[in-house]
Amino acid sequence: MSRTWSLDEVSKHNTTKSCWVIIKNKVYDVTEFLPEHPGGSSIILKYAGRDATAAYEPIHPPDALHKNLPAQKHLGTLDTQGAETLKKANEQRRKTKDEIRVEQAQKKKPPVSRILSVKEMEDVALRVLSFKAAAYYSTGADDEITLSENARAFSRFFFRPRVLRPISSVDPSTTILGFQSSLPIFVSGTGLAKLGHPLGEANITRGCGRTALIQMVSTYASLSASEVAAARLSPAQPLFFQLYKHADDARAAALLREIETLGYNAVFLTVDAPVAGNRERDVRAPFELEAQEREIEAEARGVAETEGLEGEPEMPDQGVDEDDGGTATPFLNITDHNMTFEKTIPWLRRNTKLPIVLKGIQCVEDAVLAAEAGVDGILLSNHGGRQLEYSPPPLEVLYQLRQQRPDVFDKLEVYVDGGVRRGTDVLKALCLGAKAVGLGRAFLYAQSAYGEAGVVQVARIMQREIVLGMRLLGVTSVSELRPELVERIDWQPSLPRAKL
Amino acid sequence: MSRTWSLDEVSKHNTTKSCWVIIKNKVYDVTEFLPEHPGGSSIILKYAGRDATAAYEPIHPPDALHKNLPAQKHLGTLDTQGAETLKKANEQRRKTKDEIRVEQAQKKKPPVSRILSVKEMEDVALRVLSFKAAAYYSTGADDEITLSENARAFSRFFFRPRVLRPISSVDPSTTILGFQSSLPIFVSGTGLAKLGHPLGEANITRGCGRTALIQMVSTYASLSASEVAAARLSPAQPLFFQLYKHADDARAAALLREIETLGYNAVFLTVDAPVAGNRERDVRAPFELEAQEREIEAEARGVAETEGLEGEPEMPDQGVDEDDGGTATPFLNITDHNMTFEKTIPWLRRNTKLPIVLKGIQCVEDAVLAAEAGVDGILLSNHGGRQLEYSPPPLEVLYQLRQQRPDVFDKLEVYVDGGVRRGTDVLKALCLGAKAVGLGRAFLYAQSAYGEAGVVQVARIMQREIVLGMRLLGVTSVSELRPELVERIDWQPSLPRAKL
Amino acid sequence: MSRTWSLDEVSKHNTTKSCWVIIKNKVYDVTEFLPEHPGGSSIILKYAGRDATAAYEPIHPPDALHKNLPAQKHLGTLDTQGAETLKKANEQRRKTKDEIRVEQAQKKKPPVSRILSVKEMEDVALRVLSFKAAAYYSTGADDEITLSENARAFSRFFFRPRVLRPISSVDPSTTILGFQSSLPIFVSGTGLAKLGHPLGEANITRGCGRTALIQMVSTYASLSASEVAAARLSPAQPLFFQLYKHADDARAAALLREIETLGYNAVFLTVDAPVAGNRERDVRAPFELEAQEREIEAEARGVAETEGLEGEPEMPDQGVDEDDGGTATPFLNITDHNMTFEKTIPWLRRNTKLPIVLKGIQCVEDAVLAAEAGVDGILLSNHGGRQLEYSPPPLEVLYQLRQQRPDVFDKLEVYVDGGVRRGTDVLKALCLGAKAVGLGRAFLYAQSAYGEAGVVQVARIMQREIVLGMRLLGVTSVSELRPELVERIDWQPSLPRAKL
Amino acid sequence: MSRTWSLDEVSKHNTTKSCWVIIKNKVYDVTEFLPEHPGGSSIILKYAGRDATAAYEPIHPPDALHKNLPAQKHLGTLDTQGAETLKKANEQRRKTKDEIRVEQAQKKKPPVSRILSVKEMEDVALRVLSFKAAAYYSTGADDEITLSENARAFSRFFFRPRVLRPISSVDPSTTILGFQSSLPIFVSGTGLAKLGHPLGEANITRGCGRTALIQMVSTYASLSASEVAAARLSPAQPLFFQLYKHADDARAAALLREIETLGYNAVFLTVDAPVAGNRERDVRAPFELEAQEREIEAEARGVAETEGLEGEPEMPDQGVDEDDGGTATPFLNITDHNMTFEKTIPWLRRNTKLPIVLKGIQCVEDAVLAAEAGVDGILLSNHGGRQLEYSPPPLEVLYQLRQQRPDVFDKLEVYVDGGVRRGTDVLKALCLGAKAVGLGRAFLYAQSAYGEAGVVQVARIMQREIVLGMRLLGVTSVSELRPELVERIDWQPSLPRAKL
Repeated sequence: MSRTWSLDEVSKHNTTKSCWVIIKNKVYDVTEFLPEHPGGSSIILKYAGRDATAAYEPIHPPDALHKNLPAQKHLGTLDTQGAETLKKANEQRRKTKDEIRVEQAQKKKPPVSRILSVKEMEDVALRVLSFKAAAYYSTGADDEITLSENARAFSRFFFRPRVLRPISSVDPSTTILGFQSSLPIFVSGTGLAKLGHPLGEANITRGCGRTALIQMVSTYASLSASEVAAARLSPAQPLFFQLYKHADDARAAALLREIETLGYNAVFLTVDAPVAGNRERDVRAPFELEAQEREIEAEARGVAETEGLEGEPEMPDQGVDEDDGGTATPFLNITDHNMTFEKTIPWLRRNTKLPIVLKGIQCVEDAVLAAEAGVDGILLSNHGGRQLEYSPPPLEVLYQLRQQRPDVFDKLEVYVDGGVRRGTDVLKALCLGAKAVGLGRAFLYAQSAYGEAGVVQVARIMQREIVLGMRLLGVTSVSELRPELVERIDWQPSLPRAKL
Repeated sequence: MSRTWSLDEVSKHNTTKSCWVIIKNKVYDVTEFLPEHPGGSSIILKYAGRDATAAYEPIHPPDALHKNLPAQKHLGTLDTQGAETLKKANEQRRKTKDEIRVEQAQKKKPPVSRILSVKEMEDVALRVLSFKAAAYYSTGADDEITLSENARAFSRFFFRPRVLRPISSVDPSTTILGFQSSLPIFVSGTGLAKLGHPLGEANITRGCGRTALIQMVSTYASLSASEVAAARLSPAQPLFFQLYKHADDARAAALLREIETLGYNAVFLTVDAPVAGNRERDVRAPFELEAQEREIEAEARGVAETEGLEGEPEMPDQGVDEDDGGTATPFLNITDHNMTFEKTIPWLRRNTKLPIVLKGIQCVEDAVLAAEAGVDGILLSNHGGRQLEYSPPPLEVLYQLRQQRPDVFDKLEVYVDGGVRRGTDVLKALCLGAKAVGLGRAFLYAQSAYGEAGVVQVARIMQREIVLGMRLLGVTSVSELRPELVERIDWQPSLPRAKL
Repeated sequence: MSRTWSLDEVSKHNTTKSCWVIIKNKVYDVTEFLPEHPGGSSIILKYAGRDATAAYEPIHPPDALHKNLPAQKHLGTLDTQGAETLKKANEQRRKTKDEIRVEQAQKKKPPVSRILSVKEMEDVALRVLSFKAAAYYSTGADDEITLSENARAFSRFFFRPRVLRPISSVDPSTTILGFQSSLPIFVSGTGLAKLGHPLGEANITRGCGRTALIQMVSTYASLSASEVAAARLSPAQPLFFQLYKHADDARAAALLREIETLGYNAVFLTVDAPVAGNRERDVRAPFELEAQEREIEAEARGVAETEGLEGEPEMPDQGVDEDDGGTATPFLNITDHNMTFEKTIPWLRRNTKLPIVLKGIQCVEDAVLAAEAGVDGILLSNHGGRQLEYSPPPLEVLYQLRQQRPDVFDKLEVYVDGGVRRGTDVLKALCLGAKAVGLGRAFLYAQSAYGEAGVVQVARIMQREIVLGMRLLGVTSVSELRPELVERIDWQPSLPRAKL
Repeated sequence: MSRTWSLDEVSKHNTTKSCWVIIKNKVYDVTEFLPEHPGGSSIILKYAGRDATAAYEPIHPPDALHKNLPAQKHLGTLDTQGAETLKKANEQRRKTKDEIRVEQAQKKKPPVSRILSVKEMEDVALRVLSFKAAAYYSTGADDEITLSENARAFSRFFFRPRVLRPISSVDPSTTILGFQSSLPIFVSGTGLAKLGHPLGEANITRGCGRTALIQMVSTYASLSASEVAAARLSPAQPLFFQLYKHADDARAAALLREIETLGYNAVFLTVDAPVAGNRERDVRAPFELEAQEREIEAEARGVAETEGLEGEPEMPDQGVDEDDGGTATPFLNITDHNMTFEKTIPWLRRNTKLPIVLKGIQCVEDAVLAAEAGVDGILLSNHGGRQLEYSPPPLEVLYQLRQQRPDVFDKLEVYVDGGVRRGTDVLKALCLGAKAVGLGRAFLYAQSAYGEAGVVQVARIMQREIVLGMRLLGVTSVSELRPELVERIDWQPSLPRAKL
């Protein structure tokens, strides 16, 4: 299939009847794939007969097309003249206002060693990320109450620090599902790291390798599971896999076999996202970028920008177009919507030997059901406030579990994620019984701003803060962190001055 | 009575002795009607001998004059020259600052399909509404504490979402008083939709018809009950009627007969508004508009605007002039101020076969009395925060009813309205026992900004949010929404970032 | 003593040895009075040998000098030339920045009939008051926490409104100590009304006469007790007297006899202000005015203003100079610092037949002691937040009294003041057991902005709001206001948007 | 050792092999001292072969070098020409932006007698302090939640003021560990007063002498213990010593002997700071000053300032460099990290006859342990919010101790510090059982802004506020302050308008 094609030839295949696209100068016939595309056909049809590289690259693993398209649909390569034309067009393309802003922000960012806190890392990242990436990474559901409450929950727990204890030697390490971790934290799964940095999730993999932390890799990472596995510093570096179970059991089982073969060490089954939450900031991002550009064009033409369209408003369609449901919607359309404790856990056990953790438990009752179902761990999480608005903060669920069903902690490992920014946040969760604490956005922002060095810096910050906090609490190992060292206050605390 | 009149002839009848007005080029003798006008005679006398169309139209149903004025007082039409003169005067009239602002805002508003949330719809509407309409629609009583608490109450209830439940198929439909509704929401009665859009309440009627929702129509709608009924997509489309009971039982009975004949399906008796609340924003609106115009005139004359009047302040009159009590005051002056459970409910039962709901129950005791009085339903409501300041949020009353008298839910249907903006708000109320939830301003704003299309868009938004919320809660029908799925928190939650 | 004096002759008496002052063109020898002056001698010495009219007038009753100075010290009048010179000097004096601001604000203020709420009245008054008067009227103690909490306390009480009650006829009148009042409110005592309006307290007296309210007159009013009594519309108009008991029992007894003779109807003994609170806003006002003027002078000279003095800082004196303790300090220096329940109440009973009320009770224990001491009433008050910072809001004390010692309400009348702005505030206090509610600043601001008409307008506003609130609560007389109609909430309410 | 050296000769000794520095024109060989320097060698090496006076002076007692360096390393003095060169260089050095700001602020500060409150003193000081000093003094740990909660805790306690009590004569004095104090407050230990004022801690010593207060002097004061002792107004003036116990018992014992000889009267052992907290504001200060200067230089060169460095980010080092851990880190590196109740208290008793107080108790359990260990007092403190973030406010710990273990108050004296700004704060703590209350920053700020006069002014302010508060509470001696006079509120109070 090494035929070459001219731009002109490709351009004729621009309909649902025959739909070709160019990606990195390769030509593909995606006509038959259109109805199968998880994100709907209309996204692809925007690029029918044209170059789709810029849209495709940051959100797909490189092997996505190869896996999904039969070899005979790989039609060949673009001819030299076509490639040259695309390259020039790309070079001459006027930069968007947002691209210019990002370039300037990149020049001004401080050296990574001067980043003193996770919050500061987040601030820098939000300045250097594209508007679209910033919106996708930072968005919560609806009005972002749960997003904000996740973090605020930590401020309701104060310490009871103990003094006059020997603290010269402190060991913050622990195990997670039996795997060594230098700190009682792990990288919680997040998607689309390439939106923030060209090397994507591999930055995190290598950063974790250097600092002896464990990364959880999403089914919808922008690198494939094998690329991430290949980025490990050694085959012994543990990796966890965050599974979005495909509606088709066979495809899901195949994926489990693949990640086992690749050497992943545990499966975190996502249970809080059978469908995507209402992430308005993400959905609105393209509208706002459009408005930015329209404004620039209007200025260039010397006229005032007007958003509205005069005349009668059109009647809205039945429901929102699936294409417009935000970045994550396409992925979740193919997820299993009918999982149950009774059916899905045994199925998983049959299809993998890896430890199984349920990611996204949001109340005590389900924590108890999980223990009864015999899983190895649960991650108390509301998906970083991106799914159900007014889902309770995971730390509150942890606290209720401690109050109401302390026996659950003896049956499985309990983790939390959501809103963690400080070493003290980690220590509070551990005092209440968490085995380890996940950080998702912190590492995503870090790799966006500084690549692998950012990931290492976040690890260093957490290490410094955790060790310091242990010393000032009067403990020297994580096993000494116990409920008596924290107290839930009955007043309304001050807010951290700049938390998201 | 097809005589024609010149402007000059009409202009002579400009006193309480003989008071004529022109409305849409028709001439009426309203002298004898002056003392009967619910809003007082002085409002009419401002237009004595003159054209009153602009003031009359947005707040009266077209048939109001016909109903209230005997045929012999319909004096005929304005002559061609007079009509021409009025038309020109109207065209040449300098636009007010506020009219210019509205025109510009209309041009800039986004396409209706891009409105993602009820809050956004409200924001757009508040930009395109006239100052006067915005003030009337948005006003609460006094300092608008109750207005704001109605919405904030929802933020004190968090979910206990359940995972690993089959949620591929979700049905959000329900019945209200036995009538099918595609969603567990209805349009709560509001007045004066024509202030916001020339087609007024009919926008809502048609929008509800398209989306299988039920509209409650106010006695003081700006369209007549028959006009609204005529706007239905089919005679089977259900409609509820919000009754402000006239002080005169006979007139009230006549109205009940009329709406029954027109095919209305239930009577919601307003019990929280025997008199109008202290709606300062509404009362103050004309003063502020005046100040705007004075400022413009002063600028035009090149002098600084000064509001004050020098010299000794005049002594205030005894109480506030009834004309100045805000937009709703005239309507409520003729309302029955002496209704009781013992007398009024049986009277209603005798005068209508329709189901009876009390709209405006504000405490558990009265909910119990309503159940004992045998009504079919109660709407927990404080009139959208427009009546008694520091009336409790309806959601809190619902919660107390659930805690203290769960038996009431078995005796009648319980609804709430006030402060609802999100699908999650609806779901919380349903978990606590509400059969359905009313939205008033949301639909009023929607029809103001986009007419019928806006109404449909709000319905679509609510549908999307309710279905999504049900999925993420792990339920597939409204009957599964139960108290265990919500929890009243004991901390102070974050506020939605832009709720009114 | 009708000699006339030249300015030159007077100017020689400018020392502690011989100190003369001119007040309204009269010449007084105050040498022997210097050590007796409650505000300290240094305030007087600033004007030794000079005209003191402008400083004297707004804070002293006209008869103060006559009462305190023997006839032979009334030396006579200023000669014509001297009077002329003073008049010219006064006319030519450059207006201060603050005086210019006030003049402009007076021109811009709205007509009194457009003032819709007490808050709005307060806003207007704060714009038209001199900086000094605004500071004195508005100041609270320390950081003004108690000042602000007094008002916020009302927001923690919500109503349980009852519907379907006959409310066509509502009577808001009551009695206070047996005296008729058209509303369940009274004017709480405040000082120095002349700072805000040249007619001072008489504005309030006449406004109360017109609206059938009762005024409490302070020992330190800027009109004398007899002037206020003379301002009544009829001798039957009731007046209460707020007594600051003089340290000298004989002088205090003489005052009691005087006010009894003048026809006052009750004595409110101030018990919360034996010394003045730390009213920083008031103390700081002269410094800030000085800075304003210095800035203007510096601008005139074309140099930058600098506040500081270079060189070594001087060592502070022992404590604050009594002259600098704020406007109220001089008055309170002569107040009895050793009053007790055991001694002072019987003394009062012996020296007056009038009903006795303790003004400034701040906890349940003292309310009980007051009942045991047999007084006729207590006013729960913290002096408008001007005395002890972190004194509890009076409404909270009322609530505790209702919860802990309901029997006290049967033994005496209980009033509250502090933070009342709305009719609903009054109704809440009455529901909890208060017989009536005092408003101090509201009337002080009203007379400052509009004189008597302002006082009447505030009365009208309160009447409208109280009657409306009663209707919407479902009650028709104050005796129906009962604890079951209010509920203390357990969440943090919204704040009124612009309360002080 | 009186040889003289040229700048050139000194400049050759600029390596770890041979490291000389000039301090106040004296030349020292510090080569062998490098590894012993608590702050690490790299700080010294920045000045190797050069003048280090400006960096050395504000943070070391003058005798520090003499104590730590053997006589033979005192090499002699700089020659005349060298001294002249240094002087000129110093004079010609361009002032930094921050130095210019400080000079202007010094000119504008108000006379000390016009400072009305501790808050105002703090505001003035923060304007006249260098950026670096302001950062070091004001910083709290992490996000400064604990810093801010320390102060806010006081706002949750309201008074129950008692009226009709004789209060003409009030005595606010007390004893602390048996030593007379004019007020129930003391100066809590703080470091580095010379950063704020050239006379440093001696300002506080003399101010305390004048006002009969007791100063606690830190091991890490910028004056030596002997210099502070020498600054006393008389040998009878009591002084407390805040001990940071050296890791080397022998050195710690020697220090105890020294301070006993110098006449110190008690030892406050620091137990909450074995290592330095994460004081980000302090750590970040040099970065921000750098940025200020870079900006100025860039402006001078006419180019835009850019902070970032292009190219690949460097990988962060293992942990933060100890030099960069903030101002306090060097001192704490040599502190004993292995103290215990069992070992350290008896050791202290053996090595000193002075009363022993534990400074930094943060929970009830440790207060009980302290009582069992037989110390003379405990200072409930979290080091002014500079150590463990989310350590509870000391006032809350005091309240819990009162509720849970009132017996502890009978066994030792209990003090609190942290967040105290007002006389009412002091009174609340005393009501709850504190014997006295410490103020640290208040006096540090006062001496920074006005030297000794500032210290006296803060004492006067506290005296006035404490006496006034006692009067308005109805008490005349500190022994009457009792738990019944305060009440913990159950609502969220207003915040002081400008507290830090």
